[in-house]
Amino acid sequence: MTVWLVGAGPGDPDLITRRGLELVRSCDALVYDRLVSPELVAEAPADALRVPRKQLSQREIDELLVTLGREGLEVVRLKGGDPFVFGRGGEELLALGEAGVPVEVVPGVSSLAAVPGAAGIPLTHRGVADRVRFFTGHASDEHVDGETVVVFMGLQQLPHVVEQLLGEGLAPTTPAAVVARGTLPGQDVVVAELGTIAEAAAGVAGPALVVVGEVVRLREQLAAPWMNRHEIVTLSP
Amino acid sequence: MTVWLVGAGPGDPDLITRRGLELVRSCDALVYDRLVSPELVAEAPADALRVPRKQLSQREIDELLVTLGREGLEVVRLKGGDPFVFGRGGEELLALGEAGVPVEVVPGVSSLAAVPGAAGIPLTHRGVADRVRFFTGHASDEHVDGETVVVFMGLQQLPHVVEQLLGEGLAPTTPAAVVARGTLPGQDVVVAELGTIAEAAAGVAGPALVVVGEVVRLREQLAAPWMNRHEIVTLSP
Repeated sequence: MTVWLVGAGPGDPDLITRRGLELVRSCDALVYDRLVSPELVAEAPADALRVPRKQLSQREIDELLVTLGREGLEVVRLKGGDPFVFGRGGEELLALGEAGVPVEVVPGVSSLAAVPGAAGIPLTHRGVADRVRFFTGHASDEHVDGETVVVFMGLQQLPHVVEQLLGEGLAPTTPAAVVARGTLPGQDVVVAELGTIAEAAAGVAGPALVVVGEVVRLREQLAAPWMNRHEIVTLSP
Repeated sequence: MTVWLVGAGPGDPDLITRRGLELVRSCDALVYDRLVSPELVAEAPADALRVPRKQLSQREIDELLVTLGREGLEVVRLKGGDPFVFGRGGEELLALGEAGVPVEVVPGVSSLAAVPGAAGIPLTHRGVADRVRFFTGHASDEHVDGETVVVFMGLQQLPHVVEQLLGEGLAPTTPAAVVARGTLPGQDVVVAELGTIAEAAAGVAGPALVVVGEVVRLREQLAAPWMNRHEIVTLSP
C-alpha cells in the first residue's frame, strides 16, 4: 500500500514520465485532477477505482487519499504539471505522512517551462534572459509574502551566490539547502542557514542546486517517510 | 529527417517522458550531455550513432546537429532536465531553424522542481511560499540583466497581474504572451505588449499562463518551424 503523488505533465498525454505511466497502468485507484488528459485516465486498469477531483475540497482530497491508502490499495494521485510546483502536493504529502500512510512523489513536467516552450518561448536564452520568476495570480487575500529562491550552479560559485542574496537583504538565518546528484541514489542534501551554507556544503562535489527560503523547513516533516531510496547528509540549521 | 531536442529529466532515468523515450528508442543518432544517465543512452538502438557532448563547444554542437539533420537522420539531442530552462535549447533551435532543418522540442522534467522535491522540499506551499525565483550562479561577466516572469492564473486575474507588474516598474512596452491549453492541439497563444495584453487576450478561455519579458520576441524566430501541430492566434506587439 502506497500513495503515489504523480505529475501528469502539462497537458499532452505523451509528456507523462515513464515511471508515472507505469504506476497509472498498475494502480488500484486513480484520483485525478480536472486538467488531466482523458487518455491518461484511460491507461488505468479496467477494474481500477477512478475518482475525479471535481468539487472536492483540498481537505476532502487529503482525507480520501488517507482512506484509500489505509485500505491497502496502490493509489495514484495524478496531478496536472508537477506535484510540487503550485500543485499543493506538499499538503497531501503532509496529510498522508501524519496518518502513517506510505507515500512517494514522482515529479512531472511542469507547465511553467513546457507551456512557454510549446509556444516557441524559451524561459532563458543567452544574452536575453538568465533569470526566471514564477508566481500565481490568485486573489490577493490568499497572498503570503514568501518567496523561494532556486539557484543552479557549480558549487565553487556558492560563496558568491550567498553574498549576492545577503546583499539583497535576505537574513543570514534564512533556511537553505544544497542538493547534489538530485533524484539519483546517493544524492547529497545539506541543510543549514544561508549564512553558513557555503561552509556546511564544503565537502559536497558536483553540480548542485541551492534552495533558499522557509520551504526548506518543511523538509523535516516531508522527507522522512518516502526518502528511503536516498542517502542523505543533513546538518540541522 | 528531424532533430528532436529532448529533455532527459533531472537524473533518474525513469523520469524521461513517454515521448522522449520512444524517440530515443527509434533514433539514428543520439547526441547527449554529460549528465544524461547511461541507462538512457543504452536505450538507443544498437546501431545508432552515439555522440557524447564532452568537450564540444555550443557552436560545435549546433553545427553537428545541422550536419546530422542534413544527412536525413532522425537525430535525438538529449539534454539534462528541460531543454528550455537553463538548457540553451533555444540556441540549438535557432541554428537548426536557420539551416532549414526540421526540429521539434520535447519538454522534460526540469531539475529546478524535481531536485528540491526529491529532497522533500516543495517550492511552493500554502502559507509558506507562493513565489519562486530561479537564476544561475555562473561567473558575473556572463551575466545579462534579463528576467522572465511567468504567472499561472485564471484569465480573470490578468488585469490585476498586469497592474502589479507595471507597478513594479516593468515598461508597458515589454513583450508579453498569454498561452491557454498549452501543449495541447488547439492551444491559444496571444502576443502583445504588457500594457495591452489584457485587452488582446479578452477572447481567450480557460486556465492560462502569462510570460512577460524579452524572450517573448524569440517566438517569431523559434515558433514557425516546429509548431505545425498547434493552432495559434497571434496579435503582434
